[in-house]
Amino acid sequence: MPDTELDFTIEKIGDSKIKNPLPYVQSTGESFSNFVGDDEFIVYNVYAKKGDKPLAYGPSTVLEKAGPRDKIYFNPQHVHAAIVTCGGLCPGLNDVIRSLVRNLWYGYGVRRITGIQYGFKGFLPEYNFPVVDLDPDIVDDIHKIGGTMLGSSRGGNDIPAIVDAIERMNLNIIFTIGGDGTQRGALAVAEEIDRRHLRVAVVGVPKTIDNDLSFVQRSFGFETAVSKAVQVVSGAHVEADNAINGIGLVKVMGRDSGFIAAHTALASTEVNFVLIPEIDFDLEGPQGFLAALKRRLVARKHAVVVVAEGAGQRYLKAIEGTDPSGNKKLADIGGYLKDAITDYFKTEGMEVNLRYMDPSYTIRSAPADPNDSLYCARLGANAVHAAMSGRTKMLVSLWSNKFIHVPIKMAATSRNYVNPQGSLWRDVIEATRQPASMKNP
Amino acid sequence: MPDTELDFTIEKIGDSKIKNPLPYVQSTGESFSNFVGDDEFIVYNVYAKKGDKPLAYGPSTVLEKAGPRDKIYFNPQHVHAAIVTCGGLCPGLNDVIRSLVRNLWYGYGVRRITGIQYGFKGFLPEYNFPVVDLDPDIVDDIHKIGGTMLGSSRGGNDIPAIVDAIERMNLNIIFTIGGDGTQRGALAVAEEIDRRHLRVAVVGVPKTIDNDLSFVQRSFGFETAVSKAVQVVSGAHVEADNAINGIGLVKVMGRDSGFIAAHTALASTEVNFVLIPEIDFDLEGPQGFLAALKRRLVARKHAVVVVAEGAGQRYLKAIEGTDPSGNKKLADIGGYLKDAITDYFKTEGMEVNLRYMDPSYTIRSAPADPNDSLYCARLGANAVHAAMSGRTKMLVSLWSNKFIHVPIKMAATSRNYVNPQGSLWRDVIEATRQPASMKNP
Amino acid sequence: MPDTELDFTIEKIGDSKIKNPLPYVQSTGESFSNFVGDDEFIVYNVYAKKGDKPLAYGPSTVLEKAGPRDKIYFNPQHVHAAIVTCGGLCPGLNDVIRSLVRNLWYGYGVRRITGIQYGFKGFLPEYNFPVVDLDPDIVDDIHKIGGTMLGSSRGGNDIPAIVDAIERMNLNIIFTIGGDGTQRGALAVAEEIDRRHLRVAVVGVPKTIDNDLSFVQRSFGFETAVSKAVQVVSGAHVEADNAINGIGLVKVMGRDSGFIAAHTALASTEVNFVLIPEIDFDLEGPQGFLAALKRRLVARKHAVVVVAEGAGQRYLKAIEGTDPSGNKKLADIGGYLKDAITDYFKTEGMEVNLRYMDPSYTIRSAPADPNDSLYCARLGANAVHAAMSGRTKMLVSLWSNKFIHVPIKMAATSRNYVNPQGSLWRDVIEATRQPASMKNP
Amino acid sequence: MPDTELDFTIEKIGDSKIKNPLPYVQSTGESFSNFVGDDEFIVYNVYAKKGDKPLAYGPSTVLEKAGPRDKIYFNPQHVHAAIVTCGGLCPGLNDVIRSLVRNLWYGYGVRRITGIQYGFKGFLPEYNFPVVDLDPDIVDDIHKIGGTMLGSSRGGNDIPAIVDAIERMNLNIIFTIGGDGTQRGALAVAEEIDRRHLRVAVVGVPKTIDNDLSFVQRSFGFETAVSKAVQVVSGAHVEADNAINGIGLVKVMGRDSGFIAAHTALASTEVNFVLIPEIDFDLEGPQGFLAALKRRLVARKHAVVVVAEGAGQRYLKAIEGTDPSGNKKLADIGGYLKDAITDYFKTEGMEVNLRYMDPSYTIRSAPADPNDSLYCARLGANAVHAAMSGRTKMLVSLWSNKFIHVPIKMAATSRNYVNPQGSLWRDVIEATRQPASMKNP
Repeated sequence: MPDTELDFTIEKIGDSKIKNPLPYVQSTGESFSNFVGDDEFIVYNVYAKKGDKPLAYGPSTVLEKAGPRDKIYFNPQHVHAAIVTCGGLCPGLNDVIRSLVRNLWYGYGVRRITGIQYGFKGFLPEYNFPVVDLDPDIVDDIHKIGGTMLGSSRGGNDIPAIVDAIERMNLNIIFTIGGDGTQRGALAVAEEIDRRHLRVAVVGVPKTIDNDLSFVQRSFGFETAVSKAVQVVSGAHVEADNAINGIGLVKVMGRDSGFIAAHTALASTEVNFVLIPEIDFDLEGPQGFLAALKRRLVARKHAVVVVAEGAGQRYLKAIEGTDPSGNKKLADIGGYLKDAITDYFKTEGMEVNLRYMDPSYTIRSAPADPNDSLYCARLGANAVHAAMSGRTKMLVSLWSNKFIHVPIKMAATSRNYVNPQGSLWRDVIEATRQPASMKNP
Repeated sequence: MPDTELDFTIEKIGDSKIKNPLPYVQSTGESFSNFVGDDEFIVYNVYAKKGDKPLAYGPSTVLEKAGPRDKIYFNPQHVHAAIVTCGGLCPGLNDVIRSLVRNLWYGYGVRRITGIQYGFKGFLPEYNFPVVDLDPDIVDDIHKIGGTMLGSSRGGNDIPAIVDAIERMNLNIIFTIGGDGTQRGALAVAEEIDRRHLRVAVVGVPKTIDNDLSFVQRSFGFETAVSKAVQVVSGAHVEADNAINGIGLVKVMGRDSGFIAAHTALASTEVNFVLIPEIDFDLEGPQGFLAALKRRLVARKHAVVVVAEGAGQRYLKAIEGTDPSGNKKLADIGGYLKDAITDYFKTEGMEVNLRYMDPSYTIRSAPADPNDSLYCARLGANAVHAAMSGRTKMLVSLWSNKFIHVPIKMAATSRNYVNPQGSLWRDVIEATRQPASMKNP
Repeated sequence: MPDTELDFTIEKIGDSKIKNPLPYVQSTGESFSNFVGDDEFIVYNVYAKKGDKPLAYGPSTVLEKAGPRDKIYFNPQHVHAAIVTCGGLCPGLNDVIRSLVRNLWYGYGVRRITGIQYGFKGFLPEYNFPVVDLDPDIVDDIHKIGGTMLGSSRGGNDIPAIVDAIERMNLNIIFTIGGDGTQRGALAVAEEIDRRHLRVAVVGVPKTIDNDLSFVQRSFGFETAVSKAVQVVSGAHVEADNAINGIGLVKVMGRDSGFIAAHTALASTEVNFVLIPEIDFDLEGPQGFLAALKRRLVARKHAVVVVAEGAGQRYLKAIEGTDPSGNKKLADIGGYLKDAITDYFKTEGMEVNLRYMDPSYTIRSAPADPNDSLYCARLGANAVHAAMSGRTKMLVSLWSNKFIHVPIKMAATSRNYVNPQGSLWRDVIEATRQPASMKNP
Repeated sequence: MPDTELDFTIEKIGDSKIKNPLPYVQSTGESFSNFVGDDEFIVYNVYAKKGDKPLAYGPSTVLEKAGPRDKIYFNPQHVHAAIVTCGGLCPGLNDVIRSLVRNLWYGYGVRRITGIQYGFKGFLPEYNFPVVDLDPDIVDDIHKIGGTMLGSSRGGNDIPAIVDAIERMNLNIIFTIGGDGTQRGALAVAEEIDRRHLRVAVVGVPKTIDNDLSFVQRSFGFETAVSKAVQVVSGAHVEADNAINGIGLVKVMGRDSGFIAAHTALASTEVNFVLIPEIDFDLEGPQGFLAALKRRLVARKHAVVVVAEGAGQRYLKAIEGTDPSGNKKLADIGGYLKDAITDYFKTEGMEVNLRYMDPSYTIRSAPADPNDSLYCARLGANAVHAAMSGRTKMLVSLWSNKFIHVPIKMAATSRNYVNPQGSLWRDVIEATRQPASMKNP
């Protein structure tokens, strides 16, 4: 989006007048505070070109720093907080829940924390899912298990009904853990709350295993997902290497962006081709993928291909276009490529042995690796600090390696993509040594 | 260091006039370049306070962006590169070696790459260690094994003798993988090279498992080290929890800084006390560590303590002071604490069961986790790009999540420390719920 | 097979007259031998019923003990050994290769060891695959990587052509690592060798990831396969538990037998239904699987189903029968069940969320777990001892927890199956609490 | 022990007259039983030598088969069962507890199950530890965490006081999970129960991480312990290999026996010397360990040594003998060897770099690997079947790969040792290529 449209101002539902109960943290000798001031910010755009004009700090150039404030808005005894997890599973969901509960309970002394089951649907009376009372004992070991102890689902975005439920339960803080769709829903909920003149803080923890949310340097669970994908690629390499003209084909997550595919290739170093949604490629023709794959097989006898689920969609559409009955299996680029590769080498009269692997459920249901656990713990802590200070319609996030606040309306309006001209894709090209372009002239 | 002393200017040994052989990376339709311009920079200080003056870009405020340049200094056919690994082991050393070799070989076509064995000592004639010819086949699987295929050692900083060896071997690029001591040695080598009017690029890859190098957002191997430490802490928690008044005491690396200890505590969430060099604590007295530990045991029946090896050194010195024979065992804070805790509870008449674990060799010899592998691969690639462009006396690094160049003289003059007033330590205090201060008034 | 047909006599290609070069292993004080006598055996049938007649030892009741003999048949300097790996991948193949090479080389001093690539096809001139010279350096780290460094394939059982190749290469020991098909091929090779009056020992190392070879207590790689399957089931449980009426469906290996499925269920303890080839089940009807699954979902809201690939084949055949075009997709019980479950609950008007996982390539390409590595190391050592002593047409195996020799003709004529009346299946029923029978009356 | 003293008769506390509530397990067509008959046995000694007399089945030659009987002794509604875990931690303790609880609850319908905390001490009034009510929900996820949810301790063998507590609680089944000391205590408890004419079944699950209990083919947790030890040895190898004349010294568990050390060496294949209690060795002298270590270093530049904690005790005693104050640190063979090696090479004027690792707490506190989980699940199931049938003074065990019953008085009177003439030690010698003897003549 154009920089002129940026506005990182964070809304508050009221002034903070209550002393924060968190202890001052003292060091040797003198006492000092670990609180963060409302005047502390982080530069949004760290890039600079020689000759650029000086960077003026303002709402469109800096992001608010996250952390506890010395004054808070809510009296902890009055707080009734709810936590909801939405959308597909992602490593670390339980870590975030655990951190929210522990920081509310131990840090601020909040005693009413309610878990909403199965996403936004858990607010809706027609589903009638029971809510879950949360406390530190219940969440003590949940981070050792993948998924979310609250369950999750897609949909249920019936905004007025959700706000009805919020009123019924007398909730005044809502934590929404979910992707951009969920956060747009959370924003709509917060706007409906405004319309009803309620005082409810809505703070989101952004979740996307694809790592493609704007203003989110790194989404939780992404590193774990890459780790698991690397293990699968390792097996694919063994399978490919041990068979006559073996091909290992692995489909990874990435509906709109190729971050998992690109990172997996860089981390594994056993990948020869990466196909992602951002970079178009031809299948046929002398410069196309199939011919490049054949050249690789002739030279090295085996190949490993990683394909993001959103890559090459034009092939699926093309074929769907010709087939009015709309075979939904064709929407799967993995299966499509598997067939295309098989057919191509049959035509070429070359024996190949292709193994196709689709590990997505295994990846997304894994418990978080330690570094993701740590990240989730800190995201959760900062979400609690933000909500207690009365902030709303915002997400906690990491940017330039610092924890910050982002307005939902900024983060949920666009996505990140792998930049074909950036360093990530350059390093992928160099590591895989795949052709810089697989487009025919 | 004061900002006024900052100077991020990168030295070059000559002008770049040779076309970079890396392929242009093309996207759909039009062709474009993935090269990085010499006019591209990254902001050093991303913090801003309301009312701060605008940020003027200049040598003291921005860091040079890493990446391939469209013109390079060295003709790849003339290059003879050497790689040396120094100091203690760290996960990812083999990944960095592998990346350097592959990028030199495949990216630029360099064919003479020499591995120096056992650190700087490998340059010295008195050791007479054979050198190792490196190529992509030899390094193909080394990243699956911990440590460094070249071996490592400390010392050997005989600068004139090293430069003699560089001349003897006709080396024109040296990659030094090591900590700040190593990099200071590398700088001295580069200065001696200047004195002899040689044209040799010296490019470092900073290594510190403690993660405490200045201008290095994250040192490679650090995340892996934290992951391994978390596993050990998990066992310590089980031991503590299963014994009558069980105490698990784990010593982790961190001679001058508590980053591993702090991150391990945050990632594990089973740690009750973290002792680090940056935060002084009393052992005795009502606010001291031992009394706090007793309160924890009485309340919860078990406790897990993580201590960085450099914590509480004043206790070791005090005792060393009284004992002129200088028992070197006392330099071990882990053993000292183990005895102090045991004695204290004996005096208190309280049965405790203490298990002490010191996993440092197991941690540092582990192979890199996938996300560290990826990071090493990218550090190596950028080190090669920098050296081929004729840059010298510099390190490749990550800052504000971007790969950049740092002059060695900046990076090797100070260390990072855990800021007692910062968000990391704050989150540790909140996660462990240890007293904000364990100093008696 | 009836006990009367058992004959465990091991064939030899000649008398052993050469002193074994292995060192006598000495203990404190006196010296003694670790060699195994040709008169040492292991009881085949350890079951006894009260009142049974005494067990007479003879060729049909005892198996020859494996291990080095004090006299060997082959002069190690004359030996040219070949190793071939056939069929599907299995964890531990590289461990066995490594052990064979090291024991031949270091134990007996054999210096000519040849690896045949891609299974029996590697012997055939029409494929013209190069052979691989093997020595301890080449195999030093191969066990850290899954698969087989020699590659593998199915087929190529052209017996005369194989023996032609054996003659051309002057091989006198052949190690065949493969399943019962491979071993039947090896037996045919050995018989052709007899017909040509050659002196070549053929010794097999039995491989079946399904663990269903007769006279093989435990096949190598099986425990690793179960470990990996358990991880996948763990993810399936998370997925099922976190969705509204979630069902995790995991297909595991087991074409004719349900050992992997049964062991996975017992090791994971998160499985609710195990479907294996040995136990027939109805899909429809009040006692059928689908109704049982519904009862489980109503009671517990989620379910995990593990199905062996060979289970329920009658459903696939039935449908294939009605469809003359022979849709090969139907041969996949996993996909069939997925559709059947989805259709059933649609008919029942019940929302379910099914996740289907098929991890077989990831499982079989994994490196061996330590206990499988150890087992492979010992199988390899015993295979070398057997071959050097001139034994042929035999497999090394474990029985009643002792290493023994089995004639190929015994081991390759029948398979093991999960006994529906045995303790394994009983423990599965008790652990899963699935209905003891899912057949309608 | 001499075979003439063997008596495998299992005692019962009364006749079984109650129908077992476990469902008949049915297969296709006809119905049949999975119950085990009281007339089913397993051969104890599977070894046979040519010419041996036939094996007559009787109480000294066969072991009773484990499993559910069609008639049981206890009415499940009358049962109050207790579970106690004693001694050092071992992977799988929680798995056994979980299996006992689930089989009692779901299989037999027992509803009163009590966990005794911290070993036998949990029975004693002076400790006043609360008991824990156990049910399937409480134990549902405990197997994912190492250790024992009940806690453990050594000692507390006050037999009359324990039986007093058993009477107070009206327990009629006691499950003791512990080593031979614990089981001897359990036997004494059962004998005191007899003296008081009570009807209480005492059934043990044998636990020894050292794997050295008699009549126990494999103790639970042993495979996991070996797996973890292999990881540590892997790091020791890296450390040794990367340093100038590097030596990795790893101490593993094994107070009286070298099974963990031997298996670790075989599984890791990176070990050069294994020192175990069963095989004496000299340190000094031309054939001694130190000279052998030097020869290895000269030849290969690095070495890995695994020492069982009970090895070389005569050196510790010798030195203790000269020091009347009895420095208990000397009882540690690891520290002793570390010093002895350092001193020796100092004397020899040879630079070596020794890294010493002692991972025992990390190993024993690990959660069980899947194959150990499975084993624990089946041990627990069979212990429940045995107790419900009224058997007492017995252990459940595996022998010749079948689950069986052993009288405690047989199992707890002797230990297993690594046989210097057996195949295990032979394979260790061949794999490590250490000298067959390190004794000077």
